[in-house]
Amino acid sequence: MEKIISLCKRRGFVFQSSEIYGGMEALWDFGPLGALLKQNIKNLWLKEFVLKREDIVLIDGTVIMHPKVWEASGHLSHFSDPLVECKNCHLRFRADHLEEGKYIGEGKAKEKNQCPNCGGKNFTKPRQFNLMFKTFFGPVEDSAHVVYLRPETAQSMFVNFKLVQESMRLSLPFGIAQIGKAFRNEITTGNFLFRLREFEIAEIEYFVKPNEADKYFEKWVESWKNFFVKLGIKEKNLRYYEHPKESLAHYAKRTIDIEYNFPFGFSELGGIANRTDFDLKAHSKASGKDLSFFDEKEKKKIYPFVIEPTVGIERLFLAVICEAFEEVKGGREKEGKKEAEIVLHLPFFLSPIKVAVLPLLKNKKELVKKAKEIFNFLKEDFVCFYDEKGSIGRRYRRQDEIGTPLCLTVDFQTLEDNTVTLRERDSMEQIRIEISRLKEAISRIIEGEDFRKFGKPFSS
Amino acid sequence: MEKIISLCKRRGFVFQSSEIYGGMEALWDFGPLGALLKQNIKNLWLKEFVLKREDIVLIDGTVIMHPKVWEASGHLSHFSDPLVECKNCHLRFRADHLEEGKYIGEGKAKEKNQCPNCGGKNFTKPRQFNLMFKTFFGPVEDSAHVVYLRPETAQSMFVNFKLVQESMRLSLPFGIAQIGKAFRNEITTGNFLFRLREFEIAEIEYFVKPNEADKYFEKWVESWKNFFVKLGIKEKNLRYYEHPKESLAHYAKRTIDIEYNFPFGFSELGGIANRTDFDLKAHSKASGKDLSFFDEKEKKKIYPFVIEPTVGIERLFLAVICEAFEEVKGGREKEGKKEAEIVLHLPFFLSPIKVAVLPLLKNKKELVKKAKEIFNFLKEDFVCFYDEKGSIGRRYRRQDEIGTPLCLTVDFQTLEDNTVTLRERDSMEQIRIEISRLKEAISRIIEGEDFRKFGKPFSS
Repeated sequence: MEKIISLCKRRGFVFQSSEIYGGMEALWDFGPLGALLKQNIKNLWLKEFVLKREDIVLIDGTVIMHPKVWEASGHLSHFSDPLVECKNCHLRFRADHLEEGKYIGEGKAKEKNQCPNCGGKNFTKPRQFNLMFKTFFGPVEDSAHVVYLRPETAQSMFVNFKLVQESMRLSLPFGIAQIGKAFRNEITTGNFLFRLREFEIAEIEYFVKPNEADKYFEKWVESWKNFFVKLGIKEKNLRYYEHPKESLAHYAKRTIDIEYNFPFGFSELGGIANRTDFDLKAHSKASGKDLSFFDEKEKKKIYPFVIEPTVGIERLFLAVICEAFEEVKGGREKEGKKEAEIVLHLPFFLSPIKVAVLPLLKNKKELVKKAKEIFNFLKEDFVCFYDEKGSIGRRYRRQDEIGTPLCLTVDFQTLEDNTVTLRERDSMEQIRIEISRLKEAISRIIEGEDFRKFGKPFSS
Repeated sequence: MEKIISLCKRRGFVFQSSEIYGGMEALWDFGPLGALLKQNIKNLWLKEFVLKREDIVLIDGTVIMHPKVWEASGHLSHFSDPLVECKNCHLRFRADHLEEGKYIGEGKAKEKNQCPNCGGKNFTKPRQFNLMFKTFFGPVEDSAHVVYLRPETAQSMFVNFKLVQESMRLSLPFGIAQIGKAFRNEITTGNFLFRLREFEIAEIEYFVKPNEADKYFEKWVESWKNFFVKLGIKEKNLRYYEHPKESLAHYAKRTIDIEYNFPFGFSELGGIANRTDFDLKAHSKASGKDLSFFDEKEKKKIYPFVIEPTVGIERLFLAVICEAFEEVKGGREKEGKKEAEIVLHLPFFLSPIKVAVLPLLKNKKELVKKAKEIFNFLKEDFVCFYDEKGSIGRRYRRQDEIGTPLCLTVDFQTLEDNTVTLRERDSMEQIRIEISRLKEAISRIIEGEDFRKFGKPFSS
């Protein structure tokens, strides 16, 4: 894990938020490569679950919502964790984590219910601490103007249910999808991108007839898992955890977490919940507006059940990186190097940079000129990177580290016959290909075709 | 304006946030069509200013940052408006707006410095009200744990300047771009999507050598305007407003707003500021970290100047809709209809739905089957909409209203020769085209080619 965090910082994937001021606990910024990788993950989700489907529409709601939303949804009364304070050093902890022994080994905690900061064993009685961040809306700071930052995006889909259904003339089953920021004032945080106070979440609320809820629940478990596999996650690193009845959230009838085998153990990546008609009914009651659906065929009003697949984007990002990360001791090219080499085996369509354009030598004007021409030509269509610094081998390794699928080298033969070499990241094999065929070849290689069929094998 | 708001709600572009609870002032949710249109606007920005360029990188930072960021940036002391309270009804207003007579005509305000709510003229003395939303970070609610929601994204780029520059090995001039949520607790709000308390903003911090700042300032004014024109905004509806020296923000040497001719008058759409080296120096001083840049050629450290082009995404969305909106009294097809028809002349690449697939008659099984086949085939590549309800003319008009460039009709001839008709939104002309050529034709039409060259003219 330390190696992954270090790579992420060194190569511009992830930085600690406000690092120059000492950082902020559980807040991380995405650097240039991380922002592109995250964007590519979100784009696949959008394409698979919204753009290509006729039964799911997207919305984009605000983070701040009316406080009555959280009263009706149950978040004001239920969205909390038990908080205790160490009577000795006054730091605060989650009572359930102390009781479970989660802190053992951290700082001075040698047994459960012992303060990791000072080793004390004397805590206040647990009180419920609500995890929603609160602020004041408008220029008056009193209790009538308290609002909350949403801890999930789902409630926008419920309160907009009728407006969406009517404006788009949707019939059951249909889904409303949203991807956006959510905020949770976690008492304890940690594990890099895993438990954050600010994060992005992708959620779908899929509305179905009540008697079809079980069927669609199963379907969504399958679709969600398939999506993770498409992102390069191996099935053997995923497992299901079915929540026992007694620990279900207040709105849920059934919940399955899909867990990923993170470096710190199997932990929740995403989940699928059957939220029943809890939310639509709760908001109908609280608002006085009727959020039922009129079934034209059966000529009657029903409150649909909702199946909710969700996934945290930062967790998915972390899983994708963990899965792609390989450290090769002694180097990949059998040269017995001292330093280990890192390769990020990202699926090509996820890689932040698709092609690195490299002139063989930087002190040969013709090579540099030609390489820049090719770079300018390709970057209209692909995210490219131009690099002329250091040996070719060194430049290849810099690209391997950040998961670039293809390195294109401009050499002396290029000047004669307008061909270049393309090196593929995982096999390290090279082909020679005409410049005129590059754009189509790169497109198709990124979509998954074997790169060897686009040119003759080449060895330098 | 009322017509635009009404269309936005009726057709699923924009809903008032938490509408079932009476709504929230200055917060709006994007419905299914609005979310896609907004996404398309953001995608163009990303493509033009990040993906296609070698000198600008993207980052994605957190909304909550270290409170010292806002101390150093000057926001804690300067980011405020003068607030007064009516001594009669206790509502609060912006003193400068009362003084300028902005409320005249609203409610009971018949002259300046008169309360629009009760007509009172007796206000408290103005005090500075900071526009940053504040909340508590972590489980302790005291002044040491106060944090703020960012009112702009720019500060992430400044505090990450060194991490970004080093990890990506960037040389001057280079830019850091970000698009994301920002929050401002405005005292007075209004004009639909114009003045919001929660919004998205796209910003670039373009770092240059101090002596090149003026040159790049001019370049960015031009690039920014060209971007607006690409989104379909006519140049005659744009104008520049140069801030006089005495009203510049505390960090700026020069600022130009690009104003759009909204239905409520010319108002700021975006702006370009020369922020000088104010921010990098301020954060260097406050954090003790050196945020200068080492110029390899001249072998010396410099603090770059920064040129900052910014635009509010919701304002841009509103301008795009205003520009595209046309109401045709009596209908477009010279039938002398009673109801006016609405056409949204969006640039094709921005339209939320690219192709509507329509079987001529819904009670002919073969037509419906064929139409669904074509729909399923096309939706792999384009956002499509299937519609079989109502007359063809009515279905065309429903698509015109939401800006869909192409309507594809499956008729009896389709069953014989595998051709369909394509109707173009603005000319209402139709062509007949083979199904096998559809995907390429649609791609090219969306990119701007004349649709008439893809088939024979057809009239039904």
